[in-house]
Amino acid sequence: MHGIIATWRMAKEGIELAEGLLKDGETSGKAIEAAIRAVEDFPYYKSVGYGGLPNEEQVVELDAGYMDGDTMSVGAIGAIKDFANPISIAKKLSEEKVNNVLVGAGAEKYAHEFKFEEKEMLTDRAKAFYRKKKKELSQELKPYDGHDTVGMVCLDNSGTVTAATSTSGLFMKRSGRVGDSPIVGSGFYADSEVGGATATGLGEDLMKGCISYEIVRLMKEGLTPQEACEKAVNDLDKKLKEKRGAAGDLSVVAMNNKGEFGCATNIAGFSFSVATEELEPTVYLVTRQEDGHCTFEVASQEWLEEYMRVRMAPVEE
Amino acid sequence: MHGIIATWRMAKEGIELAEGLLKDGETSGKAIEAAIRAVEDFPYYKSVGYGGLPNEEQVVELDAGYMDGDTMSVGAIGAIKDFANPISIAKKLSEEKVNNVLVGAGAEKYAHEFKFEEKEMLTDRAKAFYRKKKKELSQELKPYDGHDTVGMVCLDNSGTVTAATSTSGLFMKRSGRVGDSPIVGSGFYADSEVGGATATGLGEDLMKGCISYEIVRLMKEGLTPQEACEKAVNDLDKKLKEKRGAAGDLSVVAMNNKGEFGCATNIAGFSFSVATEELEPTVYLVTRQEDGHCTFEVASQEWLEEYMRVRMAPVEE
Repeated sequence: MHGIIATWRMAKEGIELAEGLLKDGETSGKAIEAAIRAVEDFPYYKSVGYGGLPNEEQVVELDAGYMDGDTMSVGAIGAIKDFANPISIAKKLSEEKVNNVLVGAGAEKYAHEFKFEEKEMLTDRAKAFYRKKKKELSQELKPYDGHDTVGMVCLDNSGTVTAATSTSGLFMKRSGRVGDSPIVGSGFYADSEVGGATATGLGEDLMKGCISYEIVRLMKEGLTPQEACEKAVNDLDKKLKEKRGAAGDLSVVAMNNKGEFGCATNIAGFSFSVATEELEPTVYLVTRQEDGHCTFEVASQEWLEEYMRVRMAPVEE
Repeated sequence: MHGIIATWRMAKEGIELAEGLLKDGETSGKAIEAAIRAVEDFPYYKSVGYGGLPNEEQVVELDAGYMDGDTMSVGAIGAIKDFANPISIAKKLSEEKVNNVLVGAGAEKYAHEFKFEEKEMLTDRAKAFYRKKKKELSQELKPYDGHDTVGMVCLDNSGTVTAATSTSGLFMKRSGRVGDSPIVGSGFYADSEVGGATATGLGEDLMKGCISYEIVRLMKEGLTPQEACEKAVNDLDKKLKEKRGAAGDLSVVAMNNKGEFGCATNIAGFSFSVATEELEPTVYLVTRQEDGHCTFEVASQEWLEEYMRVRMAPVEE
């Protein structure tokens, strides 16, 4: 069995690519990297890679993380600028003996030394969003709620599970801000003996519950991916509300090493993309029920068209 | 009940200070900050704050993290240079609504904006260690094994549990390298309904198991702090050896919200410092038994004297 699951509709083209690779016997690591790179390279997704929205200083700073569930190797970068594919740098870092997590200027030095592609990641379109936001928020800058990390879990035919993330983080974040995406256990976690999980939403809240680690742990205890995702999201959501009066956006997907998958969210509007040996690449829309359970249904053609129309519409300033 | 526990002998003066504050009714947050600052300020501890050993470019880059177990608020900084007290910046960040984790130049901007004390943290003594290490490792730089993060868990009389860390990280690390210390769940975790935990050792391995989160979770399940520490260390140690052939140094301490405490390690030579309402500030030396259990005994006067003699001896180049 092989398969790949990812947060949001935006991952669809990436998982289509990965599914083809997996079918041909490619490794989980190579397939997930190719899938994330496809999302990073697409200029109209404004929360990942090229075209990602900038921080409050109008600089695009990117985070990415990678874990190999066979070896537990982890690589991650935080707040890196001017490199085209953060996921590839994170994956390369996972092969180092130490210094697996690098941030800021140090991460850029490493990426330069190893000849990763350098690229100005701020697009004219992202600049237009920035100008628009600046006008709307003349007094106080608040982070934008479209903090859509792409996170993926991938299983190959030999049973290797990997997990990976890539994001430009909160729009209008402070320079140097790092969310959950490059943090192992929070943004992503993989254990080939069990499965993997990844998260998207408000990084500052997701990390308070080490949510990806917790989902994998719950699957290890015997919960299905769906049960594990729901329990982890609902428990953290409840705890945040009790302790802080409010919970930020928490959305997760998981896949176990049999190719079974699950999802959960505490918001309206979460979507995910998934493909397995038995399921062609499909986008699902998630609905959170009153009782905290989450159901999902295949996105309609109309929804898919509207999604791309909105993403590619001119920015009205 | 109140109490404070910390990794290593080096925390002793800090916990003495904190114990006095806690006795006088000071909050857990203020007491733990004062304790960590005392360790940061002491120039002869070469793995934390002023006097900390530099990275491979001879720059001291510091990491720190803080969690409030009442509110789940987290603040952390990674790879920051030229500020005297990283813990105070991390604690201040925990009070922000978002942008709670900042790294590199962005973290420095924040610290400058909020007027934290700026200071050249590289001492002549640390430079001498750097020169010596450079000579020893003329071909290849390998991280030094004295990666002694100070991590603390503190309980105040009103039942608030906090956890905090501060470190200069691996000696000769790459610029921008971040370990487990500023990563919530790995370097530190606190939940006032349960207790807190903190870790020291090889950050790259500690983070693979979200070890501090796991210890608190095990205590919530009903394990004593000692049982939880041992189980978390032994499980991760075993898994790392199975998957990677070797496990880096893993040492932890924990305290629950009744002031009971525990420790565990997979190395020889781990020490910790602890004080509670019922126990004067004491340094314990930890021994790992053949069966994986850890015992600890009060450090002798001779050991304590030798400890400071070694720390303060001239650097022989």
